[in-house]
Amino acid sequence: MPHSTTGRGRPRLESTDQRILQAARELLREKGPAAVNIDSVAARSGVARTTIYRRYRGRDELMNAILEQLIDPAPVAPDLPVSEKLRWVLDRIRDILENRLGPGATAAIIANSDPEFTTAVRARLANRLSSLTELMNLDIKSGRLHATVDPDTVLGLLIGAYLAELLRFGSPRDGWMDRAVALLTPAVTQPRD
Amino acid sequence: MPHSTTGRGRPRLESTDQRILQAARELLREKGPAAVNIDSVAARSGVARTTIYRRYRGRDELMNAILEQLIDPAPVAPDLPVSEKLRWVLDRIRDILENRLGPGATAAIIANSDPEFTTAVRARLANRLSSLTELMNLDIKSGRLHATVDPDTVLGLLIGAYLAELLRFGSPRDGWMDRAVALLTPAVTQPRD
Repeated sequence: MPHSTTGRGRPRLESTDQRILQAARELLREKGPAAVNIDSVAARSGVARTTIYRRYRGRDELMNAILEQLIDPAPVAPDLPVSEKLRWVLDRIRDILENRLGPGATAAIIANSDPEFTTAVRARLANRLSSLTELMNLDIKSGRLHATVDPDTVLGLLIGAYLAELLRFGSPRDGWMDRAVALLTPAVTQPRD
Repeated sequence: MPHSTTGRGRPRLESTDQRILQAARELLREKGPAAVNIDSVAARSGVARTTIYRRYRGRDELMNAILEQLIDPAPVAPDLPVSEKLRWVLDRIRDILENRLGPGATAAIIANSDPEFTTAVRARLANRLSSLTELMNLDIKSGRLHATVDPDTVLGLLIGAYLAELLRFGSPRDGWMDRAVALLTPAVTQPRD
């Protein structure tokens, strides 16, 4: 069998950039912003400190690079019935809280252990939530959601549905999304008393 | 004016026991379990280390004393219409998360920074929530709450309503309870689609 440097079956070498950022993101998710620094990222990624310093002048520049990518712009909303749309929104929120912030960054924001980080993440989160609010406002205009529904309150309860699972059980239990969506669907479609 | 050691207008001297436990509880609420130890409690309370050691053999005994009192047994539920009962339950939950755990302990549980503490608090929280679940089951039996309502899911959303405010804004905004209760009331009284 001929030797090939690009053969299939060999794990692709991640670029040094990717290894640095992935290590930093993992540290942030698991342990929060205080755990992210050049030394810890070098140790986790296996990339030499000098190589990291060639890309980032220091810890602040590295954190900014992570923050830039932390919370993506909202994807286009699919056209779905209300309960499935709620589930879609909840899944966007789960992705942010589980895959991007993780328990480490979530706890750091709640404890406000790094006020600069708290402010930066809250601004990005608010921006992201406002695009979800706009989507819900369109559904209110079209009559899919009831006119008295306050999108911000719905988003708060969806965020909270994940956070409460995290607080009570460490990670969300099977079926938690179905149960939250089933409870909230009549609340957003039927008129209040 | 005669001098009186018990006269009104003078601040009552707190007992040494109270000063120790109050300092420990404040440290827990503000900074989490890692911040609670004999030295930090001595510094915060102004009680000498030797005096604290006369009451608690060490940090573990002190933490156990706080944990014992951390989450009270559920008070008797008042007889109220559904939306006011929901508000009452939400206020019990707010009290636990705001006054007892505080952001420090809440963040520590989410980050699981002290697994023993996490386990101890979760057990007490589950116990407390199960008595609220029983109250809601009685309201389901009496027909006040709709038969399809899952009390555990409602409690999760109420816990989450507070946690989401904490994550997004640092402390809950004015009117957050009213908005959550207004959204959830039809969800627990009206049948699902």
